[in-house]
Amino acid sequence: MSSHPSNPPGDAPAPNPPEATNRALSRRKLFGAAGVGAAVVGAASAGALAGRASASNPATGEVQTEVPFRGERQAGIVTASQDRMHFCAFDVTTDDRSEVVAMLQQWTAMAERMTRAEEAVEHGAVGLNPYAPPADTGEALGLSPSQLTLTIGFGPSFFTKDGKDRFGVADRRPAALIDMPKFPNETMDPARSHGDICVQACANDPQVAVHAIRNLARVAFGTAAVRYSQLGFGRTSSTTRDQATPRNLFGFKDGTANLKAEDTAALDRHVWVADGDGPAWMTGGTYLVTRRIRMRIESWDRTTLLEQERVIGRLKGSGAPIGHADEFAALDLTTKSSKGTPLIDTDAHVRLASKENLGGIEILRRGYNFTDGTDGFGHLDAGLFFIAFVRDPRTSFVPMQTALSRSDALNEYITHTGTALFACPPGLREGDASAYWGSTLFS
Amino acid sequence: MSSHPSNPPGDAPAPNPPEATNRALSRRKLFGAAGVGAAVVGAASAGALAGRASASNPATGEVQTEVPFRGERQAGIVTASQDRMHFCAFDVTTDDRSEVVAMLQQWTAMAERMTRAEEAVEHGAVGLNPYAPPADTGEALGLSPSQLTLTIGFGPSFFTKDGKDRFGVADRRPAALIDMPKFPNETMDPARSHGDICVQACANDPQVAVHAIRNLARVAFGTAAVRYSQLGFGRTSSTTRDQATPRNLFGFKDGTANLKAEDTAALDRHVWVADGDGPAWMTGGTYLVTRRIRMRIESWDRTTLLEQERVIGRLKGSGAPIGHADEFAALDLTTKSSKGTPLIDTDAHVRLASKENLGGIEILRRGYNFTDGTDGFGHLDAGLFFIAFVRDPRTSFVPMQTALSRSDALNEYITHTGTALFACPPGLREGDASAYWGSTLFS
Repeated sequence: MSSHPSNPPGDAPAPNPPEATNRALSRRKLFGAAGVGAAVVGAASAGALAGRASASNPATGEVQTEVPFRGERQAGIVTASQDRMHFCAFDVTTDDRSEVVAMLQQWTAMAERMTRAEEAVEHGAVGLNPYAPPADTGEALGLSPSQLTLTIGFGPSFFTKDGKDRFGVADRRPAALIDMPKFPNETMDPARSHGDICVQACANDPQVAVHAIRNLARVAFGTAAVRYSQLGFGRTSSTTRDQATPRNLFGFKDGTANLKAEDTAALDRHVWVADGDGPAWMTGGTYLVTRRIRMRIESWDRTTLLEQERVIGRLKGSGAPIGHADEFAALDLTTKSSKGTPLIDTDAHVRLASKENLGGIEILRRGYNFTDGTDGFGHLDAGLFFIAFVRDPRTSFVPMQTALSRSDALNEYITHTGTALFACPPGLREGDASAYWGSTLFS
Repeated sequence: MSSHPSNPPGDAPAPNPPEATNRALSRRKLFGAAGVGAAVVGAASAGALAGRASASNPATGEVQTEVPFRGERQAGIVTASQDRMHFCAFDVTTDDRSEVVAMLQQWTAMAERMTRAEEAVEHGAVGLNPYAPPADTGEALGLSPSQLTLTIGFGPSFFTKDGKDRFGVADRRPAALIDMPKFPNETMDPARSHGDICVQACANDPQVAVHAIRNLARVAFGTAAVRYSQLGFGRTSSTTRDQATPRNLFGFKDGTANLKAEDTAALDRHVWVADGDGPAWMTGGTYLVTRRIRMRIESWDRTTLLEQERVIGRLKGSGAPIGHADEFAALDLTTKSSKGTPLIDTDAHVRLASKENLGGIEILRRGYNFTDGTDGFGHLDAGLFFIAFVRDPRTSFVPMQTALSRSDALNEYITHTGTALFACPPGLREGDASAYWGSTLFS
């Protein structure tokens, strides 16, 4: 509620009719000539105005290129993992299907613009009409695309909530979109779990990712509300072969054996929903699993190096499997030490999570390190926001987590505190103007 | 508590005496030859091992250079603002002065190493002794210095807590290190306020900043505990003239009129504690003020552009003062519109915060945007973690905040939820091996 009166037009400097248009144009012009510092943001600004900014920023060198929004698949799944993430789960607050569809259509148009580093809406921040709220919140003005990707998914509660088929899609809920079972060693916070819709925003500049989520949340007002959001400050996986393997907060390289974008046959087998797997609207899509994993880093940090390596099954320095020197050496699950015990322990994390142990199961991981302040007991509230993409969670994540939650030596140092599952439809094809996020579900 | 037995040496692959040394050397070697992806991190790894990594990363282009840890002033104050921040306030949990001094000495050595992208302790992560916990947590292995700075400060409660002079320094508490008064429009969360010691970690790579805080917190175990920590994902100020002005979460350029590193005379007048200002141990230091400012971005986003610009007093696109076209134009506080009202409103933020309005007061701002998940009511918990450095808060921040908290039009959209004040001693001189963080206070 504003306690200030509406601004009389006279308060705007030297208005000339048609004022609104002039203002917008002059804003644009001003924005392009920002005085000191203009050289630094010049390339990015010009790019934003022109609708693309593919050059790298000479001042920061950050990878600024654009990731195509459209394609056979949604971006942000096998896209080379960006450095930062803002993940958001929404609750739909209306029962009106047409309102949800309208929001998804609006989101789609905004998302496509924002991945090109354009304002969410044309002239959104420095609007054509100064008497209206800006249609873009502005904090990403002048920033590059930063490889922003926005990936949407629909949770089980989108199809049926409290027994109610709010949007007439209950019969389209895929059987694979299960209610996630309860596993051992989890203390789930309902306020950090589930959600009707999720949007995963990944970018190299976190301000770009936050801006995208914030603008989607803004226009959702009255239709959907933020259920929870999670910032990830560092990627914990590589999804292409040219990315170096990053480290998680246990200090170990994470995702060495991850599926990679180049493994197209394996992705077809393990990640992409095939024709006939379930309802047609999900063909070409995938399922997104999240687990907020709190790490007890203080306990971990007081554990010997040898124990840390035994628990993981890899060497901390190189990331190589125990018994090997190369990070990418195949896991050696059979060789024994001189004492007759396996080099990779029977309850080592990499053994239990390996495809060899799981009858060939592989998942595409895309998680991020997080630190959410403190836990109130003198510790950082830190961990890993695990994200995986799978073709069918019933035959991949669930058996994997069943094995891990029962026996993984790592369980001593982690607790799962949030969980969710979302169905991510296929991508929107280039030139298909009628398609929008979820249109295969609603058509 | 580990439920696993100690690792018998036989579990390590092919041990050769002296095993520990060989392990460490081989780790190092492995680390330098990380297989696929080595090219990407090669320069940084080599730099880390050699103790410096000043080249920029050709893959990410992130600014990786090293900021000198030592100097007349602490780094992280007039250092060009890095992109990301992890701020941590600690409570000292011991009453033993020697333990605190020992921790500060250890912190100093670790901090100096970490700002050079070295492990916190030599061979810390891939230790010389596999039967000991690693002395570095490892998640920054292979990452560059990323311009990491670590800045320490001591809060009022470090000098006297609950009426007790725990460390024999009560008589050294500067008069300027006040107990911050209560202002209007604040709802302070004690769990996000104050603290005995603070460390501000700034870096371009957030993982580098988080790693630094985490390792300091780790070795503090038994001596100090994390009171609160705050991640900032985007800088909201420029502190050198070659930095472009960033935007805060209201979408406006922030810090246009900030003091800059180049303004050495103004810094001497407004930021650096001079000889005779107070106790000698603070000469050359400064005072760090924090305010966690929650922004009601949802209300803001529903406000017209004209009102937003009226509230701030600047144009959203260019950042120019209302009535001007250039961001860096001097504030024009006297010109009136055709209706006879000032172009910059009487309660506009920039007017009230201006040196013209405050009798010449200027502060050095160095804040960061934050998003801490959700507020539980469908909104992002977002805002600005305000940090300022001042020569004396009694004559700078307090009168400024008194004026702002009473009249600022922006108050409708913000609430201060955390506050702290810390005394930051001068820097440690090059070559002075006996100096440590706080040594001027304890000597």
